[in-house]
Amino acid sequence: MMKLQTLCFLLFMFVFYGNAQTINVSDYGIKPGKDVTLEVYRLITSLKGKKEVTLFFPKGKYEFYPENAYEEYRAVTNHDNSLKHIAFPIYGFQDFTIDGNGSTFNFHGKICPIVVENSENTTLKNFKIDWEHSFVNELKVIENNSKENSFVVEVNNGKFGFEVKNNEILFNHYDWQDVIGQNIAFDSKTRAPIWHTKNYYLKGSSNKSKVEKLDNKTAKFINYTEVTPPIGTVFATYGPTPGGNRFAQAIHLSESKDSFIENVTVYAAGGMALIAERCENITVDKFIVTSREDRFFSTRADATHFLGCKGMIKVENSLLEHMMDDGINVHGAYVKVEKYLGDNTFLCEISHVQQAGIVFSEPGDKVALISRETILPLYETTVTKTQKLNEKRFLLTVAQVPKEMPKGLLSFENLTWNPDLYMSNNTIRDNRARGALITTKGKVVIENNYFSSQMHGILIEGDNNKWYESGAVKDITITNNTFENIGYGTGEHYPLFIGPMFTPKQHLGTEKYHRNINFTNNTIKSYNGLLAHAMSVSQLNIQGNRITFSTDYPEGSKLPSVDLIYCEDVSIKKNSFKNFSWPLVVKTSDDVSNLSVSKNKGLSKK
Amino acid sequence: MMKLQTLCFLLFMFVFYGNAQTINVSDYGIKPGKDVTLEVYRLITSLKGKKEVTLFFPKGKYEFYPENAYEEYRAVTNHDNSLKHIAFPIYGFQDFTIDGNGSTFNFHGKICPIVVENSENTTLKNFKIDWEHSFVNELKVIENNSKENSFVVEVNNGKFGFEVKNNEILFNHYDWQDVIGQNIAFDSKTRAPIWHTKNYYLKGSSNKSKVEKLDNKTAKFINYTEVTPPIGTVFATYGPTPGGNRFAQAIHLSESKDSFIENVTVYAAGGMALIAERCENITVDKFIVTSREDRFFSTRADATHFLGCKGMIKVENSLLEHMMDDGINVHGAYVKVEKYLGDNTFLCEISHVQQAGIVFSEPGDKVALISRETILPLYETTVTKTQKLNEKRFLLTVAQVPKEMPKGLLSFENLTWNPDLYMSNNTIRDNRARGALITTKGKVVIENNYFSSQMHGILIEGDNNKWYESGAVKDITITNNTFENIGYGTGEHYPLFIGPMFTPKQHLGTEKYHRNINFTNNTIKSYNGLLAHAMSVSQLNIQGNRITFSTDYPEGSKLPSVDLIYCEDVSIKKNSFKNFSWPLVVKTSDDVSNLSVSKNKGLSKK
Repeated sequence: MMKLQTLCFLLFMFVFYGNAQTINVSDYGIKPGKDVTLEVYRLITSLKGKKEVTLFFPKGKYEFYPENAYEEYRAVTNHDNSLKHIAFPIYGFQDFTIDGNGSTFNFHGKICPIVVENSENTTLKNFKIDWEHSFVNELKVIENNSKENSFVVEVNNGKFGFEVKNNEILFNHYDWQDVIGQNIAFDSKTRAPIWHTKNYYLKGSSNKSKVEKLDNKTAKFINYTEVTPPIGTVFATYGPTPGGNRFAQAIHLSESKDSFIENVTVYAAGGMALIAERCENITVDKFIVTSREDRFFSTRADATHFLGCKGMIKVENSLLEHMMDDGINVHGAYVKVEKYLGDNTFLCEISHVQQAGIVFSEPGDKVALISRETILPLYETTVTKTQKLNEKRFLLTVAQVPKEMPKGLLSFENLTWNPDLYMSNNTIRDNRARGALITTKGKVVIENNYFSSQMHGILIEGDNNKWYESGAVKDITITNNTFENIGYGTGEHYPLFIGPMFTPKQHLGTEKYHRNINFTNNTIKSYNGLLAHAMSVSQLNIQGNRITFSTDYPEGSKLPSVDLIYCEDVSIKKNSFKNFSWPLVVKTSDDVSNLSVSKNKGLSKK
Repeated sequence: MMKLQTLCFLLFMFVFYGNAQTINVSDYGIKPGKDVTLEVYRLITSLKGKKEVTLFFPKGKYEFYPENAYEEYRAVTNHDNSLKHIAFPIYGFQDFTIDGNGSTFNFHGKICPIVVENSENTTLKNFKIDWEHSFVNELKVIENNSKENSFVVEVNNGKFGFEVKNNEILFNHYDWQDVIGQNIAFDSKTRAPIWHTKNYYLKGSSNKSKVEKLDNKTAKFINYTEVTPPIGTVFATYGPTPGGNRFAQAIHLSESKDSFIENVTVYAAGGMALIAERCENITVDKFIVTSREDRFFSTRADATHFLGCKGMIKVENSLLEHMMDDGINVHGAYVKVEKYLGDNTFLCEISHVQQAGIVFSEPGDKVALISRETILPLYETTVTKTQKLNEKRFLLTVAQVPKEMPKGLLSFENLTWNPDLYMSNNTIRDNRARGALITTKGKVVIENNYFSSQMHGILIEGDNNKWYESGAVKDITITNNTFENIGYGTGEHYPLFIGPMFTPKQHLGTEKYHRNINFTNNTIKSYNGLLAHAMSVSQLNIQGNRITFSTDYPEGSKLPSVDLIYCEDVSIKKNSFKNFSWPLVVKTSDDVSNLSVSKNKGLSKK
């Protein structure tokens, strides 16, 4: 006879899912408390071709290990390409849902939890992604001695421990060891990067430095930092880059349409919590990236990151904190023209090593030929053919080319894959780097969010230089947000920082790069009085922002509150600055035109 | 007007190729003396779907670089799996021919010249594969000092040079550096491994050793070898393994049928000259693997190697010398049973790291379940399904399983993919390791070849232990060959060495492992009087071999001339030993049965 429990479950399923197929994974031997990697993979592959399937996980803690995991070589943008073990390869599905029902998926070692590829209408909901052991090595300063510039740390490295070999500390992990590599010092009280964190950068072993293992939990470092770190400093070290520390993102969405992430928590990842590329329409709701209670840090890289997407990206009601990189980044990619081969075909090169292998474009995409010197568009056309040569280079054939090929270095930008972005009611804080990086040509609305970041609050950059993250923006509204103690890493960052990043060989062109950016009615708690920096923007509206002095960090800054370079049609209006004890000014370069500064309080034009 | 030259060419093409399409690559911008990688790739991809195509290369030296080469992640058996640049990806073609017309294809850096996959009737002929810079680093001893155990070498490293850093020598290559890694000392006079080469193994840097760069061409080593190497010693060093030195084989045949390699020379490779896996019928004729005139060494690994093939492998009229590993190896793979999952499905694990990613079987293949303790077969069945999990593990579903699953550790062996082998008129000499390794169940005939190898001449092993190279042989004839100075590396190797390789936990079973091996009428020039070692063989016939004493290396050996362990039905007849000054004996273990020793000259039973 059917148990009442089972009957209720089936009834619940019917009511909520109608005719769609819901699979209780426990019917397939997938039970909490054991390695279920193989069973989950076999179940997923057995469902190939089926639509409207929900995998329902009874609440519990499910374990995933790499040994029996599906594996393939994958290029994952902004990560290190490699053979990757994947626990949930959701490939080619329609209307597929993972409903964790509050479960924790607990990972061990180098394994990527979820990859969604070539799928439509995928929902990931109601689960937590955690790892037995964090990818971020955690060292808390418990003693220090500034005379000999030394400090003693407690290594929070669980059962794995660490060793010291050839004057180098090596952190043990599941089946590898990390050297120090990239690192940053946090403050155990604020749980955020420490003030002037650069002073405490661990420079790695040298002739002058020394590291010593004191016991299984503690180590002593001598001459590893510029300045001796205070007791309570917590170092996050996360291995060498590129190639060594971004191998296991938590969720990867690729070439998929209509993806939904709801009520998902990520406590750790050997890379980003969410990375999406070439996807259309992504909804992220109640996404939490945070550290586990016994740890200070969450992911090795960004909380969320979107490259070359289109449609609408919505991020709402989310908490993103304690990451080793940005809260959100939405951008495209500039690729270099290596050579024009004739017949409308260009030999192109992907510019950044961690974009290697991206799909830059497909036939039908509109692209712009760009000057690599001014980063301004020269010519628009449509892709008719692409042929990948290798992870760096590909052939791009377009419908038309200019009658005369422009002289100088060239790049391409994809115009079709630029998403709209709606961000609301999110908290991004206490992470390394920025709150948000936005370089999409779509309509962007960022409202009712809370930002408190170590570097810039919102960075609108575009660069054909370092990260090659395109491109120029056209329609940005940032309104009713709160920015608190922005730039607390060094004190020299802005809530809003706009401007392309140039190399010494690049220069401003005849047109402005960005346009139509509105920064209005935001509440800013600030120890340094900085509001906005903008270069090469047309139509910039900074209005109705309320900036209040805060005493949380050392006060003041040498930088102007508003800094304008080569902008036009700028309005700075009705912004009020309260309780600042030093003059706050708008500084402009000579080439700023049509600037209106009016009705501000506590702000003057220099 | 058509030039006479072109007319002649077309006429020639018509006469020789009939209606098939012959493409003169020069019509596609593929000319000697420049990087033609992109042009060759574009031409090959433009021919997809066409049959009976010949790419004809006018005689010249064509250059190939990695930058614009096609690239993909590839598992290549007995090599290091990685992203590989490939100059000629011959994928999915029928009746495709590359005719080099005597050309040299000259490679630069990490690039794999030719991969043939999923193709039928492919011919590769009339070309030479070379690399600007060898993968084997070459150091010739020009001074030595046995008092301080030091020596000075000239580094033959072309324009690339070398550096010494942290007491370690680093050899510069196209875009990487090699540490010493694997190495072996050759004798510049014999151009073969030096007598007792192990004495001169470069142990790598340590507290006691020292290496010093004297100038751009010379370096001094102190305490790097057990014994100070004589002047004229040439070290081959070729980097760390696994993972660091077998990344670029010259020719890879995979899942293809009827492949022909004719009149092809390979001067270098960052791996094997020819590696074939899961291919049916391979004909190798006039294949030359040798060092270029200005170098001592050829390939980093074997000259030819065949894993899991079927049909007929023919190797004729070939010269294979100066390699860093065996001349030829024909074998299958033992894979481990990790767990029986029920429903006729086994979780299996590929045993050797350099077999990772092999296709062990496909539906329809006959397989044997094997005891991993005795390496003897227990049960035969047919594969109905395979599912790859990752490069190490896969699921194997078979038609039937034993009523009761055998106890103890188990393995699988593929019975279908075992080729016949015909080797004739080849010279294999002056290489590291063995002449030939043969473990196939097919019919094997090895006749009229010349072997002179540092280790065993012909090794018939089968091991479920180290390399996991299956399996037991059934029909081997080795006749009318010449073996000269076999085992000159240490003096303790046999022209013929037969026997499974056991771990301490493995043991002989109730059946013999190998059977039906005939070693007849061979001519052997020998400084040590060794003829054959055999373990676990049924039906062994050693007859009519002529062994003559040679003075090329220090005489004598402590080992018996013929050594028999756990064999049955053995005939040792009419073998003659000439000019040996010490007694040559047949030694047998107590469990040898039905042994006949008769009519031999200069050989007695112990």
